[in-house]
Amino acid sequence: MPTIVVEVMPKAVLLDPQGKAVAGALQRLGNDRFSSVRVGKRFELTVDAVDDAVLAEVQVLADEMLSNSVIEDVVSITVLENAAN
Amino acid sequence: MPTIVVEVMPKAVLLDPQGKAVAGALQRLGNDRFSSVRVGKRFELTVDAVDDAVLAEVQVLADEMLSNSVIEDVVSITVLENAAN
Repeated sequence: MPTIVVEVMPKAVLLDPQGKAVAGALQRLGNDRFSSVRVGKRFELTVDAVDDAVLAEVQVLADEMLSNSVIEDVVSITVLENAAN
Repeated sequence: MPTIVVEVMPKAVLLDPQGKAVAGALQRLGNDRFSSVRVGKRFELTVDAVDDAVLAEVQVLADEMLSNSVIEDVVSITVLENAAN
């Protein structure tokens, strides 16, 4: 069944404590290549079929329910057509 | 600077309580289109330049540090070339 992937990241202007923690851990472990790390969320919504109505609904859900628009941005909504499952 | 995106999802065979909670909330709100919801993580690692060594290092980090291989799978590692920031 098709899966709609919604990706949410903390806004670029805000501090991301979780990302800072990962960046600090990388530094302590000797990986100094990474100048910044940010951690966001990836939602996979499985639907029976994808049409414009479903995509419009997912857009609304992504903005209103899956993300907190005060601190987060919805960075992408993509459809994965995997016939496998 | 280029950003390497690492995406981690809970393994398909395992229960995902966070996803179940979102699916339950959707149902209660009257959205019955979504048969399943899973919630994973999206890491953005900013690097100065991308080469094979960096990608190999990110692969190792993704497997060993950014994901818990007992319960999670690394579903994708992609490079975003955004010259903007």
